[in-house]
Amino acid sequence: MSMLINRQVILSSRPEGIPQAEHFQITETAIPQPRPGQVLIRNHFLAVEPAMRGWVNAVANYAQPVGIGEVMRSFAAGEIIASEDPQWPVSTGVTGMFGWQDYAAVDVSTIDYRVDQADLPLSTSLGVLGINGITAHYGLLRIGEPTSGETVLVSTGAGAVGSCVGQIARIHGCRTVGITGGETKRRMCIDRFQYDAAVDYKREDFAERLAAACPQGVDIYFDNASGSISDTVMQHLNVGARIIICGTASIANWNPTPLGPRVERQLLVKRARMQGFVILDHRDHYTTARSDLADWVRRGLIQYEEEVLDGIGHAPDAIAGLYRGDNLGRRLIRVVG
Amino acid sequence: MSMLINRQVILSSRPEGIPQAEHFQITETAIPQPRPGQVLIRNHFLAVEPAMRGWVNAVANYAQPVGIGEVMRSFAAGEIIASEDPQWPVSTGVTGMFGWQDYAAVDVSTIDYRVDQADLPLSTSLGVLGINGITAHYGLLRIGEPTSGETVLVSTGAGAVGSCVGQIARIHGCRTVGITGGETKRRMCIDRFQYDAAVDYKREDFAERLAAACPQGVDIYFDNASGSISDTVMQHLNVGARIIICGTASIANWNPTPLGPRVERQLLVKRARMQGFVILDHRDHYTTARSDLADWVRRGLIQYEEEVLDGIGHAPDAIAGLYRGDNLGRRLIRVVG
Repeated sequence: MSMLINRQVILSSRPEGIPQAEHFQITETAIPQPRPGQVLIRNHFLAVEPAMRGWVNAVANYAQPVGIGEVMRSFAAGEIIASEDPQWPVSTGVTGMFGWQDYAAVDVSTIDYRVDQADLPLSTSLGVLGINGITAHYGLLRIGEPTSGETVLVSTGAGAVGSCVGQIARIHGCRTVGITGGETKRRMCIDRFQYDAAVDYKREDFAERLAAACPQGVDIYFDNASGSISDTVMQHLNVGARIIICGTASIANWNPTPLGPRVERQLLVKRARMQGFVILDHRDHYTTARSDLADWVRRGLIQYEEEVLDGIGHAPDAIAGLYRGDNLGRRLIRVVG
Repeated sequence: MSMLINRQVILSSRPEGIPQAEHFQITETAIPQPRPGQVLIRNHFLAVEPAMRGWVNAVANYAQPVGIGEVMRSFAAGEIIASEDPQWPVSTGVTGMFGWQDYAAVDVSTIDYRVDQADLPLSTSLGVLGINGITAHYGLLRIGEPTSGETVLVSTGAGAVGSCVGQIARIHGCRTVGITGGETKRRMCIDRFQYDAAVDYKREDFAERLAAACPQGVDIYFDNASGSISDTVMQHLNVGARIIICGTASIANWNPTPLGPRVERQLLVKRARMQGFVILDHRDHYTTARSDLADWVRRGLIQYEEEVLDGIGHAPDAIAGLYRGDNLGRRLIRVVG
């Protein structure tokens, strides 16, 4: 080990809305020792994702909030460097909720999985083969239940989850349409993620362009956005449409709950279904999803984009950056040389 | 036949929002003759239901709107009095979309079903054994998927559909809570429909009383109301909740779409599902549902309430009356002595 200290990104105050750099502090502490049943992990990559906003909110949410003074919760990928469990030997690549820090001593139950796609970069285990790809796979296939020829519309279509959704839908014979912000990401949707069409929600003529991009209406809407983007989409639902609620990136603050056009009538008239899910509930789906995803990546059917920030110093501002739309691709922080 | 004329209730102008008496006219015409493949039906009971508002709206809906000058579309129950199809002999009891009129000559494909529960009144074929009971059965059991011990909350809990939902949920071992307007209907929920609790949405302390009535939260919300009633319910969803959108009785006008608190975050955090349905899509479910319902009615497990208005002259104001909350029980118009 070249470093003798463990740098940790600590939640230092409680944000309202989107967490900013000022809500975090970087501290240094001793490297922990694994106890029996634990392993010591050297993190290589730390994840940054929109859901982290929810993890630091004080209000009841789908997980207990991170406490003030605690290491910021995050997915990470790394290598076991010391082990007190013979099933998890030194040098094994692993992912899990190891937090924004250099080293983590964790119970082996904390490990999400052993990285066994040695031909693919470790970083993919946090993105296209990790929580992003698995989220796309479960949400689209298990909740959306696409059939060939249907139109699948994806908000944040160029994002780490959205770009997977679009490509998995294409593999299943669907017409795919991405919604994204700005011409750079719109081109990326078409050129890199092979959407049949892509629409920039920042344009004044977004509604007209969306209608033109979905001439057969929308059968599945994979929604990471909420807000006025979704309100526009609701006008184009087909009978039997499925709306998969995966995230709400366009709404900065849910306290109090913002107003929008009521959806009940449209759901009734269109016999449509709107369903939220949290991928952490579906661990029994991970193996199937990863196997499919690795196969598709190897065959070149799924392209992915990563944006790697070098050094833990990038962490405090990294969530706010996501909400500013700074990033292109899965945002990761590399913490090992 | 004692009458030589066919009285018909005609849609004479296009309502915006709830159809009122002034939007209809009663006219008299000759009794039609059945053509080959048709039968002539003498209606006994005409149905009145909230969905009729949608059937006369000009905007795209789940059925083509009734044209100006046409007989008002409705479910009806009657008897075949002349037949040009040997499979449908004279004297057979039938239900179907026969319209607000004394007589209808219809293709036999228009018939919903042959009334074969001769031990139960013909009127039940339009209510608890008809579209209301079938709607409750399909929506609760196929979409809601209740399991024993769950809390099932029903808006318009004393209504023709809602009261069935509550009782079917009770048969399946659920805790049942009805929402209704006024103390008379609230008592009816408890005393007649055997809800475990019932709450009057017109009271100022509705939110507190609803919370007290659902101490374990809400697993299934069968919604006929929408609006502020549903907004209150959304605060009490359990993880994995199912919201069945069956009607939107509390909203008088959907053009433009009224605003309400956005539901996406709550659906996400609670991993909840909100789904609309229209029973006319599910004809393959009718036989199963009617068989179950007839069994439960015979065994006294389901109570039902009917309000029979005597004479076709009651028809024009009958839909508006539903929205005023005038009625207690399934509203029918008797047109035969």
